[in-house]
Amino acid sequence: MPSAVSEFELIARYFVRATPAAASGTILGPGDDCALIAPSPGRELAITTDMLVEGTHFLPATDPAQLGWKTLAVNLSDLAAMGAEPKWVLLAGSLPNGDENWIAAFADGFFKCAQRYGAELIGGDTTRGPRNLCVTAIGELPAGQALRRDGAQADDDIWISGQPGLAALGLAHLQAKIELPEALAKRCVTALQRPLPRVELGRKLRGLASAAIDVSDGLLADLGHILERSGLAARLNEGQFPLLPAGCDPKLAREAQLGGGDDYELCFTTPLFARQQVVMLAAELDLPLWRIGYTVAAGEAQPAGDILLGDADGKPLPLPKKGFDHFG
Amino acid sequence: MPSAVSEFELIARYFVRATPAAASGTILGPGDDCALIAPSPGRELAITTDMLVEGTHFLPATDPAQLGWKTLAVNLSDLAAMGAEPKWVLLAGSLPNGDENWIAAFADGFFKCAQRYGAELIGGDTTRGPRNLCVTAIGELPAGQALRRDGAQADDDIWISGQPGLAALGLAHLQAKIELPEALAKRCVTALQRPLPRVELGRKLRGLASAAIDVSDGLLADLGHILERSGLAARLNEGQFPLLPAGCDPKLAREAQLGGGDDYELCFTTPLFARQQVVMLAAELDLPLWRIGYTVAAGEAQPAGDILLGDADGKPLPLPKKGFDHFG
Repeated sequence: MPSAVSEFELIARYFVRATPAAASGTILGPGDDCALIAPSPGRELAITTDMLVEGTHFLPATDPAQLGWKTLAVNLSDLAAMGAEPKWVLLAGSLPNGDENWIAAFADGFFKCAQRYGAELIGGDTTRGPRNLCVTAIGELPAGQALRRDGAQADDDIWISGQPGLAALGLAHLQAKIELPEALAKRCVTALQRPLPRVELGRKLRGLASAAIDVSDGLLADLGHILERSGLAARLNEGQFPLLPAGCDPKLAREAQLGGGDDYELCFTTPLFARQQVVMLAAELDLPLWRIGYTVAAGEAQPAGDILLGDADGKPLPLPKKGFDHFG
Repeated sequence: MPSAVSEFELIARYFVRATPAAASGTILGPGDDCALIAPSPGRELAITTDMLVEGTHFLPATDPAQLGWKTLAVNLSDLAAMGAEPKWVLLAGSLPNGDENWIAAFADGFFKCAQRYGAELIGGDTTRGPRNLCVTAIGELPAGQALRRDGAQADDDIWISGQPGLAALGLAHLQAKIELPEALAKRCVTALQRPLPRVELGRKLRGLASAAIDVSDGLLADLGHILERSGLAARLNEGQFPLLPAGCDPKLAREAQLGGGDDYELCFTTPLFARQQVVMLAAELDLPLWRIGYTVAAGEAQPAGDILLGDADGKPLPLPKKGFDHFG
């Protein structure tokens, strides 16, 4: 049912909400030309922007509440990968019409995620056009403690959180390219549509991890970014990877694990002395953290960015294609 | 010609540039999960996001360099309307293909504008989809000095900068709805495609203006926002408005002046004692500033947000429709 309400009414109706307690330092929220924030002394702001396009990042039939959650979650994941705590977000959206049911459901999912992670919506823009959602998220962290991509050192441990690859399998299932057993399908589709940004993990990794990235393009591709920026190579042991899920073609499941994006798990490196702390962190957060390999100095055998994958006995294994590149 | 280069190569090739001298306080720019900025003590950050959609905000045939300029300029205009100095910007773009010529020209226009106003690109996102450009801009200003919409008082002067309405005429000309004489057409199309954000004016209005807004929806509509937020009404004198351009149907030109957006002029209010300072500011900036009316307390005759327009003798004039609303 097309709506006759105005852009301003839509904003007032669905996107002006009470400030969650976690966000302080907001001087001026939505409704003016800009938002104003005053960060605390000695703190830094981390800022990220991500765009989700219908047909590219989500299927047209995606449930709007889940899309609202995910639109914010993928941005909070970028903050998590820096070790920053979510503070403020801006939302720009292009929509084909003013369908209020869709917008109300989207807003609900969006604010559920904002509430869960303590982020406050402080501004935005709405317009008419092909469905496209663009979020800018700003997080705060103590000065100098950001988890950058370029901080890894040779002989660091390499870790991945959670169960990477499930989201890619969920997408293939929704697209009817594969058929998964019901319980696995549900888990994979949830991983795709309602990813959990690893905000708490990122925060706890401050002072512990030497580098971190969130896996949006695929584990190998995103680990590659850490390696390139840090001037290192890597050796991975597939025997230390999470188990592949039963009920799915193992070759496909392996490709999803190594190359599938959209899970928003964190891949990070830590110095040897931190290994026990990371293991304890996994228990504290009730989140599996898999030590899948280690970094090595770049050289003739392995240039910077190169990844060697071996089985439990060190026998080299072939790599699948390296993740997903929108313009590749 | 479609391109085979990757998203990462496109970013590296066209969007990693040397920092302009004006932007300091950047700890980490593009290439990581987030950008990091450290604002100066006692300063506030102003943040805004705006999305430009092909077909809604710009014609498909728009010159990419001009589009690059405008995409940034409309965001800097929001900073100008707060009195903030541009510092950092993020750009998210959805593009139908990796056409490098288009991207290179767009980047040139974008960075020309960034250079001109001292803004630094610190992050972004590129993806495939219908052409859509979303910028987030962050500006800085001394704490407590922002030009908000809700600060106008009764009996304040109401001002508009420049020549509002030209952009709307330029669009109508490009769409062949009207035909303008060549020189006027050129001026109007330039106003549409290469708007000049009033950054310097906004900065100088700090401590002088009681409220300000940039005119993107139309003069009456945007003045209406100031009035609603400030709980006031207004009386305008059309005899004090800028002259309408010769060579154009006067009725159309008047509608464009009162209701046309996209010029990104500033509409602002000042207390009576500041009138002489504003007149001197116009001379200093070499920018016409028109005192078009004054605010009045809201009451039975005029509720908050109401605008009465009269001619030079105070005779009431009819109002054209109130600007442009994407979902109206």
